[in-house]
Amino acid sequence: MPLRYEKKRVVLVISKRKAVRCSAAALPDRLTPSVASMFHFELQATDPTGARAGRFVTAHGAVETPIFMPVGTAASVKTMTPADLMGLGAQIILANTYHLFLRPGHERIRALGGLHRFMAWDGPILTDSGGYQVFSLAERRTIDADGVTFRSHLDGSQQRLTPESAVAVQEALGSDILMCLDECPPSGTAPVEVARSLELTHAWAARCKEAHGDRPGALFGIVQGGVYEELRRASVAALTAIGFPGYAIGGLSVGEPPAVMYRVAGQTCAVLPVDRPRYLMGVGKPEDLVEAVARGVDMFDCVLPTRNGRNGMLFTRRGPLVIRNAEYADDDRPVDEECPCYTCRTFSRAYLRHLCKAGEITGLRLNTLHNLHYYLALMNSMRGAIVRGLFGEFRRQFYAERGEFPPPPES
Amino acid sequence: MPLRYEKKRVVLVISKRKAVRCSAAALPDRLTPSVASMFHFELQATDPTGARAGRFVTAHGAVETPIFMPVGTAASVKTMTPADLMGLGAQIILANTYHLFLRPGHERIRALGGLHRFMAWDGPILTDSGGYQVFSLAERRTIDADGVTFRSHLDGSQQRLTPESAVAVQEALGSDILMCLDECPPSGTAPVEVARSLELTHAWAARCKEAHGDRPGALFGIVQGGVYEELRRASVAALTAIGFPGYAIGGLSVGEPPAVMYRVAGQTCAVLPVDRPRYLMGVGKPEDLVEAVARGVDMFDCVLPTRNGRNGMLFTRRGPLVIRNAEYADDDRPVDEECPCYTCRTFSRAYLRHLCKAGEITGLRLNTLHNLHYYLALMNSMRGAIVRGLFGEFRRQFYAERGEFPPPPES
Repeated sequence: MPLRYEKKRVVLVISKRKAVRCSAAALPDRLTPSVASMFHFELQATDPTGARAGRFVTAHGAVETPIFMPVGTAASVKTMTPADLMGLGAQIILANTYHLFLRPGHERIRALGGLHRFMAWDGPILTDSGGYQVFSLAERRTIDADGVTFRSHLDGSQQRLTPESAVAVQEALGSDILMCLDECPPSGTAPVEVARSLELTHAWAARCKEAHGDRPGALFGIVQGGVYEELRRASVAALTAIGFPGYAIGGLSVGEPPAVMYRVAGQTCAVLPVDRPRYLMGVGKPEDLVEAVARGVDMFDCVLPTRNGRNGMLFTRRGPLVIRNAEYADDDRPVDEECPCYTCRTFSRAYLRHLCKAGEITGLRLNTLHNLHYYLALMNSMRGAIVRGLFGEFRRQFYAERGEFPPPPES
Repeated sequence: MPLRYEKKRVVLVISKRKAVRCSAAALPDRLTPSVASMFHFELQATDPTGARAGRFVTAHGAVETPIFMPVGTAASVKTMTPADLMGLGAQIILANTYHLFLRPGHERIRALGGLHRFMAWDGPILTDSGGYQVFSLAERRTIDADGVTFRSHLDGSQQRLTPESAVAVQEALGSDILMCLDECPPSGTAPVEVARSLELTHAWAARCKEAHGDRPGALFGIVQGGVYEELRRASVAALTAIGFPGYAIGGLSVGEPPAVMYRVAGQTCAVLPVDRPRYLMGVGKPEDLVEAVARGVDMFDCVLPTRNGRNGMLFTRRGPLVIRNAEYADDDRPVDEECPCYTCRTFSRAYLRHLCKAGEITGLRLNTLHNLHYYLALMNSMRGAIVRGLFGEFRRQFYAERGEFPPPPES
């Protein structure tokens, strides 16, 4: 943390003592608004390709970009502890508002000292708005100008989310980065429909900003507009007119081909303000991260490293490895001979395959640990290359190690 | 490790380098027979109650008794890594021969450098003979004087285990402590049947000893005899006549009331040689450990801390706590305010309950970690009390903290 925060840290020490006295998790309480709202992004380097290296500061610490955020859906990055995540060098994690809103409830988490203390993660936390899951997980949803009514996928209970309540829930959680409630049209939606949806998304963005005011946490706007460059531009114009400390690119990785995703991400970044972080939501595969960084994206989240880890798909420099395959039954080598993660330092492919075949929980964890290490190290390598102005070379090597070619440039 | 082993450790260092060169797990290969067979038990203190403190040495390190051995059925203590187990202070773990014999196969594990290297645990490992699982898990078993034929519970394939092959499998795994193949009659078996079964168990014990010879690892005999004192005495007489470096008490915790288990364990310990460790197989609840230690037992294994952890039942000084219960939904306290384990230091009951309700894998692990810590700390406390001659006082306090009374002395 930079020196100018030294004075404020007294607050942190005092609240730590309080936390210890009143119980389990020796974590700081939520910081005072004056500290917590101090979100600040600094662009540190731009590679000739357009890839960016930056840094932003939140009340729970600084984050160096480009960054991958492990997903802790229900206040837990599946199979991991906060100590594991710290050991992996995770700087910021994501939690899902929809899930926490339904269970255990944001008011409960607020009463228990906020999400950081609840899950014992004292680094930065980004929460989504809940909107995406309302549209993908919930049942019988009806949308109106004021918000969305839906039934919980857990117990069928009727629930409602509005721009104001989505912000209030995230504030109750104590998020460092909050997202505006938006509407995310499915892949293949016609331009006229996407345009109509954009009006709602923009109106809701303005209401979210109004609702949030200057309370703690940085509220990001979400650019929508489907796969249509004109609409993406319009969305950027509308949102930047409202003004946010950061911008997400939503509505991608929803079924469109990778080339389309890369094109739209690039077109959107080209018109976003250079002095704000850009977050491509829900993306993606390792090659998606490389291509999106090449186009100016700074932040990512995705369930792939954790979910695929649990399914026995391990990411390596040479491409994915399906550990269940018979060819690994007697393979004494680690998953990746150059990987320094605990899994690769300690266990053979044969052992990991055995755990997978035997349904051993430890295997889910060892695989997740490796995959998250792969993702975080990949981001770290990209950042190093960008700072040295060598991202183009990095990108060529990334594909060469996989025996692949980079995707052709967009027309 | 005591000084007299210093010279031998050169072997260990050399094989470590070999392990690193040829791959993943930086663990020693199996040691030379001269080191590995050096099993040695030293009785260090006997409390007025009869509780014992001791120490035994294996090729993979020393173990202080009384000891609880976490169960790593299929070469994994469920949800734990070797680093977790080391952090918990686990000194020795148990693995199940039956499971490893069927999957991934002992010859495969031998080829991969033995069980220690395969699962990356370089402390001592005790393996059972496989017999118990053949009688409890396998299908269509037929027993004859020479061994037992059964069908795998995994794929129905026909398999066979004899005293000689049970030893050979454990030798292939590289166990530090091997168990003789025995027959374990179910609870309620009539004395005449148990007596007939004993003949087989004793004959097989002699054949196991003959088969093992002076190869690495200490082979323990298993006392059977059901709940009948005469038969237990006869079994001890037969097995000590053959002569083993340690003795297990089998055939308990199979459905009989606790008072009967305590009585039989006590009666068996009373006639076992004082200079050999006594291992009560598959036991038990915390109070069972306390009562068995009071009667002279030195070693235990049980799936309770791990299995109950996964089911959300947490052991505490005040008795078990079912974390799923609604009363913990807003409970900011740790599971046990005086417990120094990572789970209790870091998380609230409310959070652990949430993980349990949400089906989060991390919860299984945090619960297991706490329960294993409880069991290992309990054994540690017992050992401390025995060394100071205060086990009776420890036992009174153990029950007082739970708001219970000790079981009455046996007639």
